[in-house]
Amino acid sequence: MAQQERAVRTRRAVLEAAAAVFAERGYAAATITEILGRAGVTKGALYFHFDSKAALARGVLREQLRAEYHLPRDLKLQEWVDAGMTLATRLPQEPLLLAGVRLSADLQGQGVFDSAWPAWGGLTSCVLTEAKRRGEVLPHVVPEETAQVFLGSCVGVQFVSQAVAGWTDLDARMSALFDHILPAIAAPAVLFRLDTASDRGARVIAEVRQRSTDLAGVPG
Amino acid sequence: MAQQERAVRTRRAVLEAAAAVFAERGYAAATITEILGRAGVTKGALYFHFDSKAALARGVLREQLRAEYHLPRDLKLQEWVDAGMTLATRLPQEPLLLAGVRLSADLQGQGVFDSAWPAWGGLTSCVLTEAKRRGEVLPHVVPEETAQVFLGSCVGVQFVSQAVAGWTDLDARMSALFDHILPAIAAPAVLFRLDTASDRGARVIAEVRQRSTDLAGVPG
Repeated sequence: MAQQERAVRTRRAVLEAAAAVFAERGYAAATITEILGRAGVTKGALYFHFDSKAALARGVLREQLRAEYHLPRDLKLQEWVDAGMTLATRLPQEPLLLAGVRLSADLQGQGVFDSAWPAWGGLTSCVLTEAKRRGEVLPHVVPEETAQVFLGSCVGVQFVSQAVAGWTDLDARMSALFDHILPAIAAPAVLFRLDTASDRGARVIAEVRQRSTDLAGVPG
Repeated sequence: MAQQERAVRTRRAVLEAAAAVFAERGYAAATITEILGRAGVTKGALYFHFDSKAALARGVLREQLRAEYHLPRDLKLQEWVDAGMTLATRLPQEPLLLAGVRLSADLQGQGVFDSAWPAWGGLTSCVLTEAKRRGEVLPHVVPEETAQVFLGSCVGVQFVSQAVAGWTDLDARMSALFDHILPAIAAPAVLFRLDTASDRGARVIAEVRQRSTDLAGVPG
Protein backbone atom coordinates (compact mmCIF):
# COMPACT_ATOMS: atom_id res chain seq x y z
CA MET A 1 0.00 0.00 0.00
CA ALA A 2 1.42 3.38 -1.02
CA GLN A 3 2.25 5.78 1.81
CA GLN A 4 -0.37 8.31 0.72
CA GLU A 5 -3.15 5.69 0.61
CA ARG A 6 -2.16 4.52 4.10
CA ALA A 7 -2.38 8.08 5.40
CA VAL A 8 -5.87 8.50 3.90
CA ARG A 9 -7.02 5.25 5.53
CA THR A 10 -5.56 6.20 8.91
CA ARG A 11 -7.22 9.60 8.78
CA ARG A 12 -10.56 7.96 7.93
CA ALA A 13 -10.22 5.38 10.74
CA VAL A 14 -9.51 8.18 13.25
CA LEU A 15 -12.47 10.26 12.03
CA GLU A 16 -14.86 7.29 12.25
CA ALA A 17 -13.63 6.34 15.72
CA ALA A 18 -14.00 9.94 16.88
CA ALA A 19 -17.50 10.09 15.39
CA ALA A 20 -18.56 6.92 17.21
CA VAL A 21 -17.30 8.27 20.54
CA PHE A 22 -18.82 11.77 20.00
CA ALA A 23 -22.16 10.19 18.97
CA GLU A 24 -22.28 8.00 22.10
CA ARG A 25 -20.87 10.30 24.79
CA GLY A 26 -21.02 13.83 23.43
CA TYR A 27 -18.04 16.16 22.99
CA ALA A 28 -17.30 17.00 26.64
CA ALA A 29 -17.15 13.36 27.82
CA ALA A 30 -15.18 12.04 24.82
CA THR A 31 -11.47 11.34 25.40
CA ILE A 32 -8.58 11.05 22.94
CA THR A 33 -7.62 7.80 24.73
CA GLU A 34 -10.94 6.15 23.87
CA ILE A 35 -10.77 7.42 20.27
CA LEU A 36 -7.22 5.99 19.93
CA GLY A 37 -8.40 2.63 21.26
CA ARG A 38 -11.28 2.43 18.79
CA ALA A 39 -9.24 3.58 15.81
CA GLY A 40 -6.37 1.21 16.58
CA VAL A 41 -3.75 3.82 15.69
CA THR A 42 -0.87 5.40 17.62
CA LYS A 43 -1.13 8.76 19.33
CA GLY A 44 1.46 10.08 16.86
CA ALA A 45 -0.68 9.00 13.88
CA LEU A 46 -3.75 10.67 15.33
CA TYR A 47 -1.97 13.96 16.09
CA PHE A 48 -0.39 13.94 12.62
CA HIS A 49 -3.93 14.41 11.20
CA PHE A 50 -5.75 16.22 14.03
CA ASP A 51 -3.96 18.38 16.56
CA SER A 52 -6.77 18.48 19.18
CA LYS A 53 -10.18 17.11 20.16
CA ALA A 54 -11.72 20.28 18.69
CA ALA A 55 -9.96 19.57 15.36
CA LEU A 56 -11.50 16.07 15.40
CA ALA A 57 -14.97 17.58 15.99
CA ARG A 58 -14.44 20.04 13.12
CA GLY A 59 -13.30 17.14 10.91
CA VAL A 60 -16.46 15.18 11.73
CA LEU A 61 -18.66 18.21 11.02
CA ARG A 62 -16.99 18.77 7.63
CA GLU A 63 -18.10 15.26 6.60
CA GLN A 64 -21.82 16.08 6.99
CA LEU A 65 -22.55 17.60 3.61
CA ARG A 66 -21.00 15.07 1.21
CA ALA A 67 -23.06 15.04 -1.93
CA GLU A 68 -22.67 11.43 -3.07
CA TYR A 69 -26.40 10.75 -2.68
CA HIS A 70 -27.53 13.92 -4.45
CA LEU A 71 -28.69 12.88 -7.94
CA PRO A 72 -29.91 15.53 -10.38
CA ARG A 73 -33.72 15.46 -10.91
CA ASP A 74 -36.11 17.26 -13.25
CA LEU A 75 -37.47 19.15 -10.25
CA LYS A 76 -35.14 21.03 -7.94
CA LEU A 77 -37.65 20.52 -5.10
CA GLN A 78 -37.33 16.75 -5.59
CA GLU A 79 -33.57 17.12 -5.07
CA TRP A 80 -34.33 18.93 -1.81
CA VAL A 81 -36.70 16.16 -0.68
CA ASP A 82 -34.13 13.52 -1.72
CA ALA A 83 -31.38 15.20 0.33
CA GLY A 84 -33.64 15.16 3.41
CA MET A 85 -34.97 11.64 2.91
CA THR A 86 -31.58 10.03 2.19
CA LEU A 87 -30.22 11.74 5.29
CA ALA A 88 -33.13 10.34 7.34
CA THR A 89 -32.38 6.82 6.08
CA ARG A 90 -28.60 7.04 6.55
CA LEU A 91 -28.53 8.89 9.88
CA PRO A 92 -29.44 5.98 12.20
CA GLN A 93 -26.81 3.75 10.51
CA GLU A 94 -23.84 6.13 10.20
CA PRO A 95 -21.90 7.27 13.28
CA LEU A 96 -20.36 10.14 11.30
CA LEU A 97 -23.84 11.61 10.74
CA LEU A 98 -25.07 10.83 14.26
CA ALA A 99 -22.00 12.58 15.64
CA GLY A 100 -22.69 15.57 13.39
CA VAL A 101 -26.23 15.87 14.76
CA ARG A 102 -25.03 15.64 18.37
CA LEU A 103 -22.08 18.03 17.94
CA SER A 104 -24.19 20.57 16.06
CA ALA A 105 -26.69 20.65 18.93
CA ASP A 106 -24.00 21.00 21.62
CA LEU A 107 -24.62 24.47 23.07
CA GLN A 108 -21.33 24.51 25.00
CA GLY A 109 -19.38 23.28 21.98
CA GLN A 110 -20.63 25.72 19.38
CA GLY A 111 -17.95 28.26 20.26
CA VAL A 112 -15.21 25.61 20.07
CA PHE A 113 -15.95 23.66 16.91
CA ASP A 114 -18.87 25.35 15.15
CA SER A 115 -22.00 23.51 14.03
CA ALA A 116 -23.24 22.01 10.79
CA TRP A 117 -26.44 24.11 11.08
CA PRO A 118 -25.25 27.15 9.06
CA ALA A 119 -24.12 24.85 6.24
CA TRP A 120 -27.45 22.97 6.33
CA GLY A 121 -29.40 26.22 6.29
CA GLY A 122 -27.26 27.59 3.48
CA LEU A 123 -27.72 24.46 1.37
CA THR A 124 -31.52 24.54 1.71
CA SER A 125 -31.56 28.24 0.94
CA CYS A 126 -29.52 27.70 -2.27
CA VAL A 127 -31.72 24.85 -3.49
CA LEU A 128 -34.91 26.82 -2.81
CA THR A 129 -33.51 29.93 -4.52
CA GLU A 130 -32.79 27.88 -7.65
CA ALA A 131 -36.22 26.19 -7.41
CA LYS A 132 -37.83 29.63 -7.20
CA ARG A 133 -35.88 30.85 -10.24
CA ARG A 134 -37.33 27.89 -12.15
CA GLY A 135 -40.89 28.69 -11.02
CA GLU A 136 -41.25 25.60 -8.81
CA VAL A 137 -41.70 27.68 -5.67
CA LEU A 138 -44.53 30.17 -5.00
CA PRO A 139 -43.59 33.84 -5.55
CA HIS A 140 -44.10 34.97 -1.93
CA VAL A 141 -41.62 32.41 -0.52
CA VAL A 142 -38.42 33.79 1.05
CA PRO A 143 -35.84 30.96 0.70
CA GLU A 144 -33.81 32.01 3.76
CA GLU A 145 -36.94 32.00 5.95
CA THR A 146 -38.11 28.60 4.74
CA ALA A 147 -34.56 27.29 5.22
CA GLN A 148 -34.62 28.39 8.88
CA VAL A 149 -38.06 26.82 9.48
CA PHE A 150 -36.85 23.60 7.87
CA LEU A 151 -33.59 23.58 9.85
CA GLY A 152 -35.44 24.00 13.15
CA SER A 153 -38.08 21.43 12.23
CA CYS A 154 -35.49 18.85 11.13
CA VAL A 155 -33.44 19.27 14.30
CA GLY A 156 -36.57 18.68 16.39
CA VAL A 157 -37.98 15.83 14.32
CA GLN A 158 -34.62 14.04 14.59
CA PHE A 159 -34.48 14.68 18.31
CA VAL A 160 -38.02 13.43 18.99
CA SER A 161 -37.46 10.36 16.79
CA GLN A 162 -34.31 9.52 18.74
CA ALA A 163 -36.05 10.06 22.10
CA VAL A 164 -39.30 8.20 21.51
CA ALA A 165 -38.32 5.56 18.94
CA GLY A 166 -34.51 5.18 18.95
CA TRP A 167 -34.43 6.67 15.41
CA THR A 168 -36.58 3.83 13.95
CA ASP A 169 -39.37 6.14 12.76
CA LEU A 170 -37.20 8.93 11.33
CA ASP A 171 -38.11 8.11 7.68
CA ALA A 172 -41.82 8.37 8.48
CA ARG A 173 -41.38 11.58 10.51
CA MET A 174 -39.31 13.28 7.78
CA SER A 175 -41.82 12.23 5.12
CA ALA A 176 -44.66 13.74 7.19
CA LEU A 177 -42.61 16.91 7.72
CA PHE A 178 -42.14 17.42 3.95
CA ASP A 179 -45.88 16.75 3.42
CA HIS A 180 -46.66 19.51 5.93
CA ILE A 181 -44.21 22.12 4.59
CA LEU A 182 -44.30 21.64 0.81
CA PRO A 183 -47.91 22.88 0.32
CA ALA A 184 -46.84 26.25 1.75
CA ILE A 185 -44.01 26.70 -0.75
CA ALA A 186 -44.43 24.54 -3.88
CA ALA A 187 -46.34 25.65 -6.99
CA PRO A 188 -49.49 23.47 -7.25
CA ALA A 189 -48.41 21.86 -10.55
CA VAL A 190 -45.10 20.85 -8.95
CA LEU A 191 -46.51 19.72 -5.61
CA PHE A 192 -48.42 16.72 -6.94
CA ARG A 193 -45.35 15.45 -8.84
CA LEU A 194 -43.10 15.25 -5.76
CA ASP A 195 -42.33 11.88 -4.20
CA THR A 196 -42.16 12.26 -0.41
CA ALA A 197 -42.96 8.64 0.55
CA SER A 198 -41.22 7.37 3.66
CA ASP A 199 -39.19 4.82 1.63
CA ARG A 200 -37.96 7.52 -0.78
CA GLY A 201 -34.56 7.71 0.94
CA ALA A 202 -33.98 3.94 0.72
CA ARG A 203 -34.91 3.93 -2.99
CA VAL A 204 -32.58 6.82 -3.85
CA ILE A 205 -29.72 5.18 -1.95
CA ALA A 206 -30.30 1.89 -3.81
CA GLU A 207 -30.29 3.83 -7.10
CA VAL A 208 -26.97 5.51 -6.28
CA ARG A 209 -25.37 2.19 -5.29
CA GLN A 210 -26.67 0.50 -8.44
CA ARG A 211 -25.14 3.28 -10.55
CA SER A 212 -21.75 2.94 -8.92
CA THR A 213 -21.89 -0.88 -9.38
CA ASP A 214 -22.78 -0.37 -13.05
CA LEU A 215 -19.91 2.11 -13.48
CA ALA A 216 -17.48 -0.32 -11.81
CA GLY A 217 -18.59 -3.02 -14.27
CA VAL A 218 -17.86 -0.93 -17.39
CA PRO A 219 -14.68 -2.27 -19.07
CA GLY A 220 -11.96 0.35 -18.72
CA MET B 1 -52.15 34.29 56.59
CA ALA B 2 -54.16 31.08 56.91
CA GLN B 3 -52.20 27.84 57.19
CA GLN B 4 -53.54 26.51 53.88
CA GLU B 5 -52.59 29.69 52.00
CA ARG B 6 -49.09 29.51 53.49
CA ALA B 7 -48.73 25.91 52.30
CA VAL B 8 -49.80 26.88 48.77
CA ARG B 9 -47.23 29.70 48.71
CA THR B 10 -44.45 27.45 50.02
CA ARG B 11 -45.24 24.81 47.42
CA ARG B 12 -45.17 27.45 44.69
CA ALA B 13 -41.85 28.92 45.91
CA VAL B 14 -40.29 25.44 45.92
CA LEU B 15 -41.58 24.67 42.41
CA GLU B 16 -40.28 27.96 41.01
CA ALA B 17 -36.88 27.51 42.65
CA ALA B 18 -36.67 23.94 41.31
CA ALA B 19 -37.66 25.18 37.84
CA ALA B 20 -34.95 27.85 37.86
CA VAL B 21 -32.29 25.29 38.84
CA PHE B 22 -33.50 22.65 36.35
CA ALA B 23 -33.63 25.26 33.56
CA GLU B 24 -30.06 26.40 34.27
CA ARG B 25 -28.28 23.14 35.09
CA GLY B 26 -30.48 20.32 33.82
CA TYR B 27 -31.91 17.53 35.98
CA ALA B 28 -28.75 15.50 36.63
CA ALA B 29 -26.69 18.47 37.90
CA ALA B 30 -29.48 20.04 39.99
CA THR B 31 -29.24 19.54 43.77
CA ILE B 32 -31.89 19.73 46.49
CA THR B 33 -29.47 21.95 48.44
CA GLU B 34 -29.41 24.60 45.71
CA ILE B 35 -33.20 24.43 45.32
CA LEU B 36 -33.63 24.90 49.10
CA GLY B 37 -31.31 27.91 49.01
CA ARG B 38 -33.22 29.59 46.20
CA ALA B 39 -36.66 28.84 47.64
CA GLY B 40 -35.68 30.05 51.12
CA VAL B 41 -37.59 27.21 52.82
CA THR B 42 -36.55 24.44 55.21
CA LYS B 43 -35.77 20.92 54.06
CA GLY B 44 -38.83 19.73 56.00
CA ALA B 45 -41.09 22.16 54.14
CA LEU B 46 -39.73 21.02 50.76
CA TYR B 47 -40.11 17.31 51.57
CA PHE B 48 -43.65 17.91 52.88
CA HIS B 49 -44.64 18.82 49.30
CA PHE B 50 -42.17 16.81 47.18
CA ASP B 51 -40.53 13.62 48.41
CA SER B 52 -37.69 13.52 45.85
CA LYS B 53 -35.92 15.38 43.03
CA ALA B 54 -37.96 13.31 40.57
CA ALA B 55 -41.19 14.46 42.26
CA LEU B 56 -40.03 18.08 41.81
CA ALA B 57 -39.40 17.44 38.11
CA ARG B 58 -42.85 15.87 37.74
CA GLY B 59 -44.37 18.86 39.55
CA VAL B 60 -42.65 21.28 37.15
CA LEU B 61 -43.82 19.29 34.12
CA ARG B 62 -47.44 19.31 35.36
CA GLU B 63 -47.33 23.14 35.29
CA GLN B 64 -46.68 23.25 31.51
CA LEU B 65 -50.21 23.05 30.20
CA ARG B 66 -52.04 25.66 32.28
CA ALA B 67 -54.74 27.15 30.14
CA GLU B 68 -54.95 30.70 31.53
CA TYR B 69 -53.90 32.19 28.18
CA HIS B 70 -56.27 30.10 26.07
CA LEU B 71 -59.18 32.37 25.08
CA PRO B 72 -62.05 30.98 23.02
CA ARG B 73 -62.05 32.22 19.39
CA ASP B 74 -64.41 31.88 16.45
CA LEU B 75 -61.87 29.62 14.75
CA LYS B 76 -60.47 26.58 16.57
CA LEU B 77 -57.29 26.90 14.47
CA GLN B 78 -56.80 30.43 15.84
CA GLU B 79 -56.91 28.93 19.35
CA TRP B 80 -54.17 26.51 18.27
CA VAL B 81 -52.04 29.36 16.87
CA ASP B 82 -52.68 31.41 20.04
CA ALA B 83 -51.53 28.54 22.28
CA GLY B 84 -48.28 28.28 20.30
CA MET B 85 -47.66 32.01 20.03
CA THR B 86 -48.39 32.81 23.71
CA LEU B 87 -46.04 29.96 24.68
CA ALA B 88 -43.33 31.42 22.40
CA THR B 89 -43.70 34.83 24.08
CA ARG B 90 -43.82 33.49 27.66
CA LEU B 91 -41.13 30.81 27.36
CA PRO B 92 -38.03 33.05 27.46
CA GLN B 93 -39.40 34.89 30.54
CA GLU B 94 -40.72 32.01 32.65
CA PRO B 95 -38.33 29.56 34.34
CA LEU B 96 -41.20 27.07 34.87
CA LEU B 97 -41.65 26.80 31.09
CA LEU B 98 -37.92 26.83 30.32
CA ALA B 99 -37.46 24.00 32.82
CA GLY B 100 -40.31 22.08 31.17
CA VAL B 101 -38.60 22.35 27.78
CA ARG B 102 -35.27 21.20 29.19
CA LEU B 103 -36.70 18.34 31.29
CA SER B 104 -38.89 17.09 28.43
CA ALA B 105 -35.83 16.86 26.18
CA ASP B 106 -33.71 15.03 28.79
CA LEU B 107 -33.17 11.59 27.27
CA GLN B 108 -31.78 10.12 30.51
CA GLY B 109 -34.58 11.62 32.56
CA GLN B 110 -37.55 10.47 30.53
CA GLY B 111 -37.71 7.15 32.39
CA VAL B 112 -37.56 8.92 35.77
CA PHE B 113 -39.98 11.82 35.46
CA ASP B 114 -41.73 11.57 32.07
CA SER B 115 -41.91 14.43 29.57
CA ALA B 116 -44.45 17.05 28.63
CA TRP B 117 -44.30 15.89 24.98
CA PRO B 118 -47.20 13.38 25.13
CA ALA B 119 -49.43 16.01 26.73
CA TRP B 120 -48.40 18.60 24.10
CA GLY B 121 -49.02 16.14 21.28
CA GLY B 122 -52.37 15.13 22.77
CA LEU B 123 -53.49 18.75 23.14
CA THR B 124 -52.67 19.59 19.51
CA SER B 125 -54.37 16.43 18.34
CA CYS B 126 -57.58 17.31 20.27
CA VAL B 127 -57.70 20.87 18.95
CA LEU B 128 -57.14 19.71 15.35
CA THR B 129 -59.78 16.99 15.68
CA GLU B 130 -62.32 19.58 16.81
CA ALA B 131 -61.17 21.99 14.04
CA LYS B 132 -61.67 19.20 11.51
CA ARG B 133 -65.17 18.43 12.85
CA ARG B 134 -66.00 22.11 12.23
CA GLY B 135 -64.67 21.97 8.67
CA GLU B 136 -61.68 24.28 9.35
CA VAL B 137 -59.18 21.56 8.47
CA LEU B 138 -58.81 19.82 5.08
CA PRO B 139 -60.44 16.37 4.89
CA HIS B 140 -57.21 14.39 4.26
CA VAL B 141 -55.52 15.68 7.44
CA VAL B 142 -54.82 13.11 10.18
CA PRO B 143 -54.75 15.13 13.44
CA GLU B 144 -52.37 12.73 15.24
CA GLU B 145 -49.86 12.91 12.38
CA THR B 146 -49.96 16.71 12.20
CA ALA B 147 -49.63 16.84 15.99
CA GLN B 148 -46.42 14.78 15.82
CA VAL B 149 -44.97 16.95 13.02
CA PHE B 150 -45.81 20.06 15.03
CA LEU B 151 -44.35 18.63 18.25
CA GLY B 152 -41.06 17.77 16.54
CA SER B 153 -40.92 21.10 14.72
CA CYS B 154 -41.62 23.11 17.88
CA VAL B 155 -38.99 21.26 19.89
CA GLY B 156 -36.42 22.01 17.18
CA VAL B 157 -37.46 25.61 16.55
CA GLN B 158 -37.18 26.29 20.30
CA PHE B 159 -33.81 24.58 20.44
CA VAL B 160 -32.36 26.47 17.47
CA SER B 161 -33.74 29.78 18.79
CA GLN B 162 -32.05 29.15 22.14
CA ALA B 163 -28.76 28.13 20.49
CA VAL B 164 -28.40 30.88 17.91
CA ALA B 165 -30.29 33.80 19.47
CA GLY B 166 -30.69 33.13 23.21
CA TRP B 167 -34.48 32.80 22.67
CA THR B 168 -34.82 36.38 21.37
CA ASP B 169 -36.21 35.33 17.95
CA LEU B 170 -38.60 32.62 19.17
CA ASP B 171 -41.75 34.69 18.33
CA ALA B 172 -40.56 35.19 14.75
CA ARG B 173 -39.52 31.54 14.35
CA MET B 174 -42.85 30.22 15.68
CA SER B 175 -44.78 32.63 13.45
CA ALA B 176 -42.83 31.38 10.41
CA LEU B 177 -43.42 27.76 11.47
CA PHE B 178 -47.22 28.29 11.57
CA ASP B 179 -47.05 30.03 8.17
CA HIS B 180 -45.28 26.98 6.74
CA ILE B 181 -47.58 24.32 8.25
CA LEU B 182 -51.05 25.89 8.10
CA PRO B 183 -51.37 25.86 4.28
CA ALA B 184 -51.03 22.06 4.38
CA ILE B 185 -53.91 21.61 6.82
CA ALA B 186 -56.27 24.64 6.87
CA ALA B 187 -59.28 25.03 4.58
CA PRO B 188 -58.51 27.95 2.18
CA ALA B 189 -61.38 30.11 3.51
CA VAL B 190 -60.04 29.68 7.04
CA LEU B 191 -56.37 30.11 6.21
CA PHE B 192 -56.58 33.77 5.19
CA ARG B 193 -58.48 34.68 8.38
CA LEU B 194 -55.80 33.36 10.76
CA ASP B 195 -53.51 35.81 12.57
CA THR B 196 -50.01 34.31 12.83
CA ALA B 197 -48.03 37.56 13.15
CA SER B 198 -44.96 37.35 15.36
CA ASP B 199 -46.49 39.77 17.91
CA ARG B 200 -49.69 37.66 18.19
CA GLY B 201 -48.55 36.07 21.48
CA ALA B 202 -47.84 39.45 23.11
CA ARG B 203 -51.25 40.81 22.01
CA VAL B 204 -53.15 37.78 23.37
CA ILE B 205 -51.28 37.97 26.68
CA ALA B 206 -52.13 41.70 26.98
CA GLU B 207 -55.78 40.89 26.24
CA VAL B 208 -55.89 38.21 28.97
CA ARG B 209 -54.28 40.55 31.52
CA GLN B 210 -56.68 43.37 30.60
CA ARG B 211 -59.62 41.04 31.12
CA SER B 212 -58.45 39.97 34.55
CA THR B 213 -57.86 43.64 35.51
CA ASP B 214 -61.38 44.48 34.31
CA LEU B 215 -62.84 41.58 36.29
CA ALA B 216 -60.94 42.64 39.41
CA GLY B 217 -62.44 46.11 39.01
CA VAL B 218 -66.06 44.90 38.93
CA PRO B 219 -67.79 45.75 42.25
CA GLY B 220 -68.50 42.44 44.06
